[in-house]
Amino acid sequence: MKTLVTGGAGCIGSDLVKALLDRGHEVVVLDNFSSGKEEHIAAFRDHPRCSVIEGDLLNLDLVSSALDNVEMVYHLAANPHIKFAPGVATDRDLRNNVLATHQLLEAMRLKKVSRIAFTSSSAVYGIPARLPVKEDDFFPRPVSLYGATKLACEALLSAFSNLFGMQCWVFRLANIVGPKIRKIGRTVISDFVYKLRKDCTRLVILGDGCQSKSYLTTEECVQAILFVVERAQDEFTVLNVGGRGTVTVTRIAEMVAGMMGLKNVKFIYTGGERGWPGDVPRCELDVTALERLGWKARWDSEESVTRAIREMLEQTT
Amino acid sequence: MKTLVTGGAGCIGSDLVKALLDRGHEVVVLDNFSSGKEEHIAAFRDHPRCSVIEGDLLNLDLVSSALDNVEMVYHLAANPHIKFAPGVATDRDLRNNVLATHQLLEAMRLKKVSRIAFTSSSAVYGIPARLPVKEDDFFPRPVSLYGATKLACEALLSAFSNLFGMQCWVFRLANIVGPKIRKIGRTVISDFVYKLRKDCTRLVILGDGCQSKSYLTTEECVQAILFVVERAQDEFTVLNVGGRGTVTVTRIAEMVAGMMGLKNVKFIYTGGERGWPGDVPRCELDVTALERLGWKARWDSEESVTRAIREMLEQTT
Repeated sequence: MKTLVTGGAGCIGSDLVKALLDRGHEVVVLDNFSSGKEEHIAAFRDHPRCSVIEGDLLNLDLVSSALDNVEMVYHLAANPHIKFAPGVATDRDLRNNVLATHQLLEAMRLKKVSRIAFTSSSAVYGIPARLPVKEDDFFPRPVSLYGATKLACEALLSAFSNLFGMQCWVFRLANIVGPKIRKIGRTVISDFVYKLRKDCTRLVILGDGCQSKSYLTTEECVQAILFVVERAQDEFTVLNVGGRGTVTVTRIAEMVAGMMGLKNVKFIYTGGERGWPGDVPRCELDVTALERLGWKARWDSEESVTRAIREMLEQTT
Repeated sequence: MKTLVTGGAGCIGSDLVKALLDRGHEVVVLDNFSSGKEEHIAAFRDHPRCSVIEGDLLNLDLVSSALDNVEMVYHLAANPHIKFAPGVATDRDLRNNVLATHQLLEAMRLKKVSRIAFTSSSAVYGIPARLPVKEDDFFPRPVSLYGATKLACEALLSAFSNLFGMQCWVFRLANIVGPKIRKIGRTVISDFVYKLRKDCTRLVILGDGCQSKSYLTTEECVQAILFVVERAQDEFTVLNVGGRGTVTVTRIAEMVAGMMGLKNVKFIYTGGERGWPGDVPRCELDVTALERLGWKARWDSEESVTRAIREMLEQTT
């Protein structure tokens, strides 16, 4: 089977490409390398069943040619930065998430490619009314442009699925952590490691530290996606993907400091319930539907965070 | 108060502009006249408190200047055609609904205009799991590009509201009927009147005729919007707007034929549950939240349809 992975040079994407090659697929990687990295795909760039196209999803001709003889698309390309900072254009997520997804769907329609898995986000829920949040306990009230545009992508997939007979898998991902996701500011883990290496006596923590989220490693995330696509055969599948439980930001700070062998680090809180504008203070994903399908994360949220910290400390300095 | 009405030359928009002028507002009409009409605004085009700007929401500079000293925006501009037909670009709704709404929100952010009412649609619900459908009984599964992009607009409003402190009112409208909405194919009423005037012996009905929807007249729709904006002071209000009950397509056919004085019209059904791809066979809006706020439609769905048929027969030939 020939498969296209958009964002295939990204942190999750490159692990997915590796897993698909291991399963015997022919894989086309499409990435504009805006956040994807050459080093992520270096290990299989010359694999006989792997080809890499450098380009943007907003280029319809390029996407169309990337879809030649493709049977299945894993659409992971997106702006990965959930935080909105003053000075950033408010159409960044609109372009990189919504317009790019529309172009991909349009190219799929024209080329008669009818199967797509899409990595959405727990950010589509905004501030959930009830925790843990279930897939159908939904009120469309995203608080970030990232969440809003991921929801818009889900809506486009839904309409394309109904109008043009596409089969879709939508994965609402927990916070995904892993050794590749170490860019400063991308995750709370890399942020804390970076700060404590600069100054091991104090750690500035955004918000009140009580923010709590579901976590999952990239490794388990890829396993879950492949498991579901191979088994769930509904026209439109929507699933939360995460580990059980949550971890607070303060707990992560304690874990990072502890694993770095630091003692008496002074935690300085910037205060407020939210770490930053658009942050969701508390989100726990209900993963019952995923578990009922037969896949259960081996590691709960705390263990996923522990492993991610350990790998980050081992692999970076 | 100075108010901007996008789509102010449209069927609902022009009635809203008239009502705002009657209330003493200064009103700026912004319309690209793609579906809006000069004749809709002819009665108040020269009103001393009304100004008309012909232009597109995708033009940020134009929108910014239209927002000069504006305190409140009613955003009604959109592609009004819910049906997707082969040959139509799949980005029509994306451009006219999502990109246009983003440009408007961005211009509001830059000009510090912080209040916006938005006409969304019952199409955001897709095929509701339960009827009548409540505002928070939601699963994002729109079946049309129109519904998908209206949901995307709601999501953008939500994010802008949270990030930039905007107050938003979102109205999920029932099928709106009235004398101005008579373009062929726009509503089932105009469709039936047109067909029966061409051939009074037979009427082709799309689907099985059992499709049933909530209806409301443009007059009552405008009343509801103004009532809510003046009273609901939450940061983000989402309300269904419709009359009680539903009317089936076959019942509308009987009503149109009867009011035209026709007997023994042969109804020919194209068959199938859905009238067209992207159609929602059954949608009844739960309007309890709107009624609890103090506004109740004077006419139920059947009476709204009756009045719309009568006005259409009186005003067109």
